[in-house]
Amino acid sequence: MKQTAINSIRKFTADRDWDQFHTPANLAKSISIEANELLDCFQWSDDGYDIEHVKEELADVLVYCRNMLDRLGLDEDEIVNAKMTKNELKYPVEKAKGKSNKYTDL
Amino acid sequence: MKQTAINSIRKFTADRDWDQFHTPANLAKSISIEANELLDCFQWSDDGYDIEHVKEELADVLVYCRNMLDRLGLDEDEIVNAKMTKNELKYPVEKAKGKSNKYTDL
Amino acid sequence: MKQTAINSIRKFTADRDWDQFHTPANLAKSISIEANELLDCFQWSDDGYDIEHVKEELADVLVYCRNMLDRLGLDEDEIVNAKMTKNELKYPVEKAKGKSNKYTDL
Amino acid sequence: MKQTAINSIRKFTADRDWDQFHTPANLAKSISIEANELLDCFQWSDDGYDIEHVKEELADVLVYCRNMLDRLGLDEDEIVNAKMTKNELKYPVEKAKGKSNKYTDL
Repeated sequence: MKQTAINSIRKFTADRDWDQFHTPANLAKSISIEANELLDCFQWSDDGYDIEHVKEELADVLVYCRNMLDRLGLDEDEIVNAKMTKNELKYPVEKAKGKSNKYTDL
Repeated sequence: MKQTAINSIRKFTADRDWDQFHTPANLAKSISIEANELLDCFQWSDDGYDIEHVKEELADVLVYCRNMLDRLGLDEDEIVNAKMTKNELKYPVEKAKGKSNKYTDL
Repeated sequence: MKQTAINSIRKFTADRDWDQFHTPANLAKSISIEANELLDCFQWSDDGYDIEHVKEELADVLVYCRNMLDRLGLDEDEIVNAKMTKNELKYPVEKAKGKSNKYTDL
Repeated sequence: MKQTAINSIRKFTADRDWDQFHTPANLAKSISIEANELLDCFQWSDDGYDIEHVKEELADVLVYCRNMLDRLGLDEDEIVNAKMTKNELKYPVEKAKGKSNKYTDL
């Protein structure tokens, strides 16, 4: 996400004095709630989804993730890079290639 | 997310030949599943969470969101900016300031 | 659920002094968390699920639903029957038959 | 749930010819989606929830759980009792009493 979008999310929250509601726990609930509105686009069928609806719900998930990064003072790239390093170890290419098994079942 | 992190996510998927599993519906499920592993950090208490665990689970949500953006050919900034413009209209400052009500109850 | 199972759930909670954690909000989080462990059985494929795993995760959802009914003093049959009456009105047979559309799209 | 409510759920589905949509995977998604509509009642506050809304969303979770039991030919009491027996072993009273830790942290 570019700085412009990050700034507009921060200004939106600040203008409405909503930081008081953005506890980490409330944001975790919010991410799950929005993730399920996204899932709802695929409730009865994997295809035939409404792409405009998908875009809005995915955006909502990303906005609440940004709120949580801000609230906890986290750097998105830092936590993603750290997790990807862990994932590389959990899912070695030679074992995981072409398989959807959990790492515990590889 | 900077290009380096985006590239490492894409390479991780490509190296494992996992694009075949990354249908939009499967990624929507995955975002919800990871969002709930994040929520699990706050299951019985709003405080006293394990920040290292939170960082990993939030990273997982962000990684699957990136996979979905890639799969659907979406631009993160574009969908976030479009949604924030909608949110500005749904939650006018003068009505929403300091209130956690849904827009339908403002 | 028969009274024997309901009693064993209640005794389990009472023996561990866990009523203090069973606020409605914490139970709502718990139901979502367990629902996503159930969803995890179907993350990458609709078929080929582990039925023993599905049984355990579905049971976990049902146990937390029972905890919530108890906490809020609700009667399961009463709330289900009331909701089914509403559903009958939202989804009239002649409009909904054979269609998976939301009631707002019928 | 008493037989009357179970029967009304089954008749509702049969009348609308909806069994075709009730695959185990779709029902798992549906349980998660409804669990998050329930969670939504507690998004910004643990208290001050709308009990009528909570009743409806909890009922929706229970209805989809019943659909899944039916689809998989499972007996609710059997799977709940089996899981409670496992829980008794995972959370021995002497270790778990008054604590909300995961069994792996007891």
